[in-house]
Amino acid sequence: MYTKLVQTTLLNCTLDHHDIERYKNRIVQIHDELENAHEMIGWIDYPLQNHDQLFNEIKNVKREICAKADVLVVIGIGGSFLGARAVQDALTPYFGVHKDGIEVIYVGHHMSGAYMHQILEYLDDKEVYINVISKSGGTMETALAFRVLRQYMERRYGEEAIQRIIVTTDPEKGILKKIADAIGYRQFPIPSDIGGRYSVLTPVGLLPISVAGIDIAQFMEGAKKAAIELKEPDLELNHAYQYAVMRNILYNEGYSVELLASFEPSLKKFHEWWMQLFGESEGKERKGLFPTCVTYSTDLHAIGQFIQEGSPILFETLLHFHEITDDYTVPFDGRNEDGLNYLAGRSLNEINATSKQGTALAHAEGGVPVIQLEMAKLDAYHLGYLIYFFMKACAMSAKLIEVNPFDQPGVEAYKRKMLELLINK
Amino acid sequence: MYTKLVQTTLLNCTLDHHDIERYKNRIVQIHDELENAHEMIGWIDYPLQNHDQLFNEIKNVKREICAKADVLVVIGIGGSFLGARAVQDALTPYFGVHKDGIEVIYVGHHMSGAYMHQILEYLDDKEVYINVISKSGGTMETALAFRVLRQYMERRYGEEAIQRIIVTTDPEKGILKKIADAIGYRQFPIPSDIGGRYSVLTPVGLLPISVAGIDIAQFMEGAKKAAIELKEPDLELNHAYQYAVMRNILYNEGYSVELLASFEPSLKKFHEWWMQLFGESEGKERKGLFPTCVTYSTDLHAIGQFIQEGSPILFETLLHFHEITDDYTVPFDGRNEDGLNYLAGRSLNEINATSKQGTALAHAEGGVPVIQLEMAKLDAYHLGYLIYFFMKACAMSAKLIEVNPFDQPGVEAYKRKMLELLINK
Repeated sequence: MYTKLVQTTLLNCTLDHHDIERYKNRIVQIHDELENAHEMIGWIDYPLQNHDQLFNEIKNVKREICAKADVLVVIGIGGSFLGARAVQDALTPYFGVHKDGIEVIYVGHHMSGAYMHQILEYLDDKEVYINVISKSGGTMETALAFRVLRQYMERRYGEEAIQRIIVTTDPEKGILKKIADAIGYRQFPIPSDIGGRYSVLTPVGLLPISVAGIDIAQFMEGAKKAAIELKEPDLELNHAYQYAVMRNILYNEGYSVELLASFEPSLKKFHEWWMQLFGESEGKERKGLFPTCVTYSTDLHAIGQFIQEGSPILFETLLHFHEITDDYTVPFDGRNEDGLNYLAGRSLNEINATSKQGTALAHAEGGVPVIQLEMAKLDAYHLGYLIYFFMKACAMSAKLIEVNPFDQPGVEAYKRKMLELLINK
Repeated sequence: MYTKLVQTTLLNCTLDHHDIERYKNRIVQIHDELENAHEMIGWIDYPLQNHDQLFNEIKNVKREICAKADVLVVIGIGGSFLGARAVQDALTPYFGVHKDGIEVIYVGHHMSGAYMHQILEYLDDKEVYINVISKSGGTMETALAFRVLRQYMERRYGEEAIQRIIVTTDPEKGILKKIADAIGYRQFPIPSDIGGRYSVLTPVGLLPISVAGIDIAQFMEGAKKAAIELKEPDLELNHAYQYAVMRNILYNEGYSVELLASFEPSLKKFHEWWMQLFGESEGKERKGLFPTCVTYSTDLHAIGQFIQEGSPILFETLLHFHEITDDYTVPFDGRNEDGLNYLAGRSLNEINATSKQGTALAHAEGGVPVIQLEMAKLDAYHLGYLIYFFMKACAMSAKLIEVNPFDQPGVEAYKRKMLELLINK
């Protein structure tokens, strides 16, 4: 059924021969630019390189953490946070923890005093490890949280705190690197030519998700498969580029919002990772599709009305996994007061998939363009593939609207204002 | 400081004398229409009426549930789900449960088979009560979950299941009412002239949030205060109407997306309630602002780039609570490697509030219109007020673009398609 791992289809607007011809050369040209760029494209070949030694170290540290701790606290924000949390949520149970891992919780991704106070109380009767993730160490949210948690660990564990704090940072420079060297914290590298939102396939994502119980070998195998397949410059054969072109056509037609939609609630945080990837890569020079997301069928009963009949500003990208490991069968009920016995014996996932079909048809009939991204199974392998797929599509997409996919100049604006206000207080 | 409980200000676009004059009469006219309408406006005076007996019953049932159960499972979707979860998340601890309540979890708001399987396993070693909430009982997601959970309760508790299942439904008609009458489940009424997204101030929201530990007397006191204050037809005196007019002006200027932003992560689910309220009320006849949301400072490091410098399609509504009960002070660190000692002794909530100011200034300078909604304190009283404030503003807002704030014809489209597909399979 799948010639490529991600099956990309447009439900009600076709990427036809004319479109392919129109974009084909442009795509090849950008493809070559990306492959031969000198800056910030370390992520393109990262899954193809041999990282056996590094991955073994991660596995060893993971084993140590799981043996000695109840909780891993990850300190990070933006690209040092969203990817790991996305994969963890997608692939660990809804209640409790994964059988191959321990609890992983996050801090330093905002500055709520209530959250900070409560997380410290929560940790008090548990054994703890820390993984602080920051390329520079200079981001306020992360730095404040690390200051608090580091002192907390030193109070609780004394000398042993050194062993229990793992630092993921730039291998050469930055405040965090300096602190880690001075104290002797164990370190994992964030390659300097990989930006935050493209870093989930490096130790930034791999250590936390490994501790959460996810098979990082499978995860990276999927990413590798994508890195090989999506090296294809031909638009007719590269589904990631097809997705980028579909978005570009719709953007040029005047659509301003792309809505990523899934039918499995565990993908909610994955959407947020996707939002950063596309929003931060494209949203500059007054350009870009605004990326937002919904989880169905929950949100069909919330924002669904707007999608079906509201302002015609959006198109929808439906992300669907055909197989979800866990499931439940609708029971027969002799009373049948609800009239649902016609569904007895069918699985909820099957009914959910039908609601996906129904939604796609209803939205398409309502005039909403619907892109469908289909994958065989929701597991580490396919998610690794999909993440790489989106990164490749995103870089192409940003280049198609002629913005730099790898910078984020606008993020500094609020930081400057905040610093001025804090220092002058 | 606050003449009204919600302080509504426009940072960089002014509701000036000219605007007031232009909208004034129209507002009075719509106000009268709403006050004198015959359908679906039960929510307008609900907080002003005497519900002592009903609220006492809720309190008694809450006491019983907390004594006999570890978990309350709430079955509902859309307006029968989002409001309660929003208030619960906003006012209960980040970790663990509120000291005055028990755990409240939700099901029936989607059809994930994995979630259903896992929630049942999660419940196995806990004492359980169920609150099923549906006006009709006919919504597929809710009905399927109730079928499963009802059989689960009967297997576990036998006859006692009748006592442990509480039904919140229409007092006169519908499948769920019929079932409840036949079996003898205890019932709480959803007034028939209050639609789902306007129902959180009725038993729909009150029973779950009460069990979660929230003081519903305070909550309804705040709503009552709003219902009194916002009966004011004069635009110059009614902040909810001012907010509606600000949105309307921006909508007419061509903005297509409203971004609700908060700086306290516990408000994330509150945003989702707000999204349904506005999206489902306004998104029809190809009209309406697309409502979406962010939590700062987390999302400043994700979608912040787009807001600052991307396509100029959005304006931002910053929701800010001046006082958050719980807090944490930045510690002094003799090493000061991070250079943050200038913040030592300041509270995180204070720094967070400064980042709010910085963000508002940065976005305004970037050309993004910023509406600020400020409240004194994040507590049950103020949240009750704010919910009513938004409902009143929303009804006015929808009327200003000449759509019916109280129907949702587009929600049926996917249901019809799904049913066709399910029945023909």
